[in-house]
Amino acid sequence: MDIYNFGKELIVKAGQFVETRMTKEFKVDSKSNPNDLVTDVDKETEQFLYTEIQEKFPDHRIIGEEGHGENITDTKGVIWIVDPIDGTLNFVHQGENFAISIGVFIDGEPYCGLIYDCMKRDLYHAKYKQGAFLNDQPLAHAKNEPLSKSLIATNPKRILREATKDSFFNIMAASRSVRSYGSAALEFAMLAKGQIAALLFIKLHPWDYTGGQIITGELGYKTTDIHGNELPLLGTTSVISGNPEIHLDILEFFKNDKTLHDFHDDFHNL
Amino acid sequence: MDIYNFGKELIVKAGQFVETRMTKEFKVDSKSNPNDLVTDVDKETEQFLYTEIQEKFPDHRIIGEEGHGENITDTKGVIWIVDPIDGTLNFVHQGENFAISIGVFIDGEPYCGLIYDCMKRDLYHAKYKQGAFLNDQPLAHAKNEPLSKSLIATNPKRILREATKDSFFNIMAASRSVRSYGSAALEFAMLAKGQIAALLFIKLHPWDYTGGQIITGELGYKTTDIHGNELPLLGTTSVISGNPEIHLDILEFFKNDKTLHDFHDDFHNL
Repeated sequence: MDIYNFGKELIVKAGQFVETRMTKEFKVDSKSNPNDLVTDVDKETEQFLYTEIQEKFPDHRIIGEEGHGENITDTKGVIWIVDPIDGTLNFVHQGENFAISIGVFIDGEPYCGLIYDCMKRDLYHAKYKQGAFLNDQPLAHAKNEPLSKSLIATNPKRILREATKDSFFNIMAASRSVRSYGSAALEFAMLAKGQIAALLFIKLHPWDYTGGQIITGELGYKTTDIHGNELPLLGTTSVISGNPEIHLDILEFFKNDKTLHDFHDDFHNL
Repeated sequence: MDIYNFGKELIVKAGQFVETRMTKEFKVDSKSNPNDLVTDVDKETEQFLYTEIQEKFPDHRIIGEEGHGENITDTKGVIWIVDPIDGTLNFVHQGENFAISIGVFIDGEPYCGLIYDCMKRDLYHAKYKQGAFLNDQPLAHAKNEPLSKSLIATNPKRILREATKDSFFNIMAASRSVRSYGSAALEFAMLAKGQIAALLFIKLHPWDYTGGQIITGELGYKTTDIHGNELPLLGTTSVISGNPEIHLDILEFFKNDKTLHDFHDDFHNL
């Protein structure tokens, strides 16, 4: 079985693992701050993914939100970038509205992207240059729409910083309306379905965006950082994703914001 | 058939009407501003509700988002307060994540509340002092949680005003995280399920909140304006709803914000 088909089966199996595991008790801890939660289910699901991938493809490497691949510093060979539960706060507080996200790269080039909405049993998937799908249905190509006629998604609490708020608030004000769903992977999934036109984050990790970036890239959506630069596979960055028109509209707001640029580049060690 | 059971059947029939109607072409217009949309489906669904209620109960009065009952100035007798599509932007852009909302009052006292998530076919309903239900399942009583451990919902674009942003941003910063779903009725539904702990709006109409207020009130959630006052059945107001603990936490942020109070009372003609 090739990597893509193996990945699709694997992510659904991992989703079944989460669904079963969450009905039993699990511990909730905090990581970098009291609102950055991790549960036993996050850790066990990452371990499940790690074990299955290693068993099938011993020479592949895995980078995960919960600690696997921390020491990886190059992108040679096959790398799986996995988020076992994207939207852990939703997982804990809502019991739904979270997803498993996987991006696979070969020598730093995208190979396939997978997002699985466990509770809805919706699998979003794409193999590079072969289109993107929701389950068995091909997803439609991005339509150009300006910011003024669009719903955009962002996390309003994360942009309250002095350095970020001016540009982000101006973008919010210029949009039709703002949504916030608490899972970057599911916001990429909504972008892929055309339900939102753009998503904006001041800081994400590769496991938050690689799956979604590959899937939406197949549909013509653009994803860059606030400078318009490509996203890295290692490290953190800002993420601006949307149809080509809104993506340009949004980058325009950042262009002359030196305060934001300085903060951003320092924040992400650029 | 009593009003409650009639209402439950009616709202599901109206949901079926929306589901069928939305598959055909419909016109989208703007109302108060280019982002305040209304569609033929909103108007036709309100007309459907109006006609059915009038046929069954000729002496009842109806107040609707799309114009019915505009001239009603008292709350005598039976009044149905209806929103045919709460979350019109989601209806237009997403084809889901909207709801029909109904609150029924007798001589100004709550009688029953109904919210129907058409696309999920989920009916939230409550008869005053008889508990609240999601379909046939009783919903659980509110649990007290402080703001610091809670997900809260608000519309970030609506609180960017000079007069509102300080208090609202401080509340957002003090929360665990912020969500925004674009439908007050569905946010009340999520509150009723315990998926969010509070919702905050600087301006809503009675058709946005009466159904949700009655349903969540049955579960022990508190709903007031920013002053802590009861909500009116006629006119507009701010809406703060949540479990008793978080409701108090949030009101505390507004207490000494004279700028907000002045803006608010002027905005709502209080």
